[in-house]
Amino acid sequence: MDKNSKHAIGIDLGGTSIKLGIVSDTGRIHKKTKLRTEADKGPKQVIENIKTGIKELTNNSKYKIEGIGIGCPGVVTPRKGIVENPPNLPGWKKVNVARIIYHEFEKEVYVDNDANAAAIGELTFGSGKKYKSFIMITLGTGVGGGIVMDKKIYHGDFGAAGEIGHISINYRGPKCNCGSFGCIEAYAGNQYLRERVRRQLKNHPGSKLWKLIDKDLNKVSPRNIQTAAEFGDKFGKRVIEDLGLQLGSAFTSLVNVLDISVFIIGGGLAGFGKPLFGSIEETLRARVMAPIRPRVKVLPAKLKNDAGIKGASALVFHHT
Amino acid sequence: MDKNSKHAIGIDLGGTSIKLGIVSDTGRIHKKTKLRTEADKGPKQVIENIKTGIKELTNNSKYKIEGIGIGCPGVVTPRKGIVENPPNLPGWKKVNVARIIYHEFEKEVYVDNDANAAAIGELTFGSGKKYKSFIMITLGTGVGGGIVMDKKIYHGDFGAAGEIGHISINYRGPKCNCGSFGCIEAYAGNQYLRERVRRQLKNHPGSKLWKLIDKDLNKVSPRNIQTAAEFGDKFGKRVIEDLGLQLGSAFTSLVNVLDISVFIIGGGLAGFGKPLFGSIEETLRARVMAPIRPRVKVLPAKLKNDAGIKGASALVFHHT
Repeated sequence: MDKNSKHAIGIDLGGTSIKLGIVSDTGRIHKKTKLRTEADKGPKQVIENIKTGIKELTNNSKYKIEGIGIGCPGVVTPRKGIVENPPNLPGWKKVNVARIIYHEFEKEVYVDNDANAAAIGELTFGSGKKYKSFIMITLGTGVGGGIVMDKKIYHGDFGAAGEIGHISINYRGPKCNCGSFGCIEAYAGNQYLRERVRRQLKNHPGSKLWKLIDKDLNKVSPRNIQTAAEFGDKFGKRVIEDLGLQLGSAFTSLVNVLDISVFIIGGGLAGFGKPLFGSIEETLRARVMAPIRPRVKVLPAKLKNDAGIKGASALVFHHT
Repeated sequence: MDKNSKHAIGIDLGGTSIKLGIVSDTGRIHKKTKLRTEADKGPKQVIENIKTGIKELTNNSKYKIEGIGIGCPGVVTPRKGIVENPPNLPGWKKVNVARIIYHEFEKEVYVDNDANAAAIGELTFGSGKKYKSFIMITLGTGVGGGIVMDKKIYHGDFGAAGEIGHISINYRGPKCNCGSFGCIEAYAGNQYLRERVRRQLKNHPGSKLWKLIDKDLNKVSPRNIQTAAEFGDKFGKRVIEDLGLQLGSAFTSLVNVLDISVFIIGGGLAGFGKPLFGSIEETLRARVMAPIRPRVKVLPAKLKNDAGIKGASALVFHHT
């Protein structure tokens, strides 16, 4: 019953929903809840909803809470707990989330961006446990990144480090919504990937994917690309292999710059599984400098469901 | 007369020559010498030559020496002073340079790779003095890099970090001799640049460069490219602008990953001057995320001649 465990509240603050849980320091969720973010009503309402969620969890709870961890989108100043201009949360500019929640509950509050929280989650409970340094990549709508150096998140001088999604792999490549060109997000981000596949599919009239989407290009999705590949469809396989080459190339640059050779991959596209991981590894082994090759590891994230809640709670355990 | 200064010996160990100097902690060279490396005779002879050089400097010297700093090519384990497989120094494998020199002279010995020594040189005596974090790039035969984080060189877990030259800007680009593709070194490295210009020049029969090389493509060099550009030659200007775009793109990825926004550029190609620096800055300002743009700085290295000696000596001052 985890009697000797410590407990924290982990909060995954997203554009659509707020997910909260009481998590033990062994990574077990004892109680959880979910509320609508109501992002359109502005920061005050969102914070009201966070408070309601915390109260729901702690009412009549037997667990002593060590602290509250919050994973947010956007740029976060972790030392101060300030969240700046989070995408999907309109009207925020700068909000000192940590101070507001602390005043209400008198528990230490730790805030970091969701990609860093995911990395800390893997470091504390998941695939990163036994590594001193690794890079966590979350392949979702965007491509999130967190750099763990010497068991700590590397935040950089201004808290903006770790934007792995915005490494360019092609300086004359497709425009990315960050303003740059050829960013890995402009290849692997969900929308970019779908659009590219839609364009390319027209040149592959024999692909099994056509049947899986009922000839409706709007239905192209990572899931049916994967199904096509699993049925042996050449085009579907190529899409996944290409993605591995693109990610592997960005990772090679990271190895050369940071001398970090362990990569942990989560998020929806990690579901492509072995064909994707194999292609990334093959690219890395072919491209990183010879002495480093034996150290290269590409691992799937261990935390799947509730990764956001667990990662946010790990922000607390990582500090205590 | 620098009476209160501290002094160190700085040694720039290259494939052709060994340059040594007594340097004060204000960056003044009081005495210097130069010997042939005789790399072909193997590590024993090279180390003998280093010792001879040190003795030349210290005989009848009035300066109290705090320590000895050595900048080497290749991968260096700075904590241990071991140099591994330096290119241009055949037969080395692993040599514990620090221990050998320490035994002879009983002075502390600090060894690091030449690109990191250059960065420490700029941090201690040059353009990096007032910055907490910056990235130093040396544009020479290869493209060397050193990452200064929080006033310290970032070495990575295995001492191989900072290979800025091997960030890929085009995952399907030209093959680099490191094994990867589209590395910035495969664009900006001296030989790669010359070869590319030779190829491209054939499509520009009206370029002033033809006259400058007496129609002999073997004579293409950074210097005559620069002269052509200074005479208003469109092709020459384009070469330099393209190089700025390529470097600027690699630097954009670095800003996004490391949240470091100051770049110091040294080495031969830094001689392209304003047209190159302007193009790099323009690329960075167009491509890095909006909140970071005002922080971006691209500076020329301050140490020019004897940068190798001064950087190596700074390895000592940086430790004392």
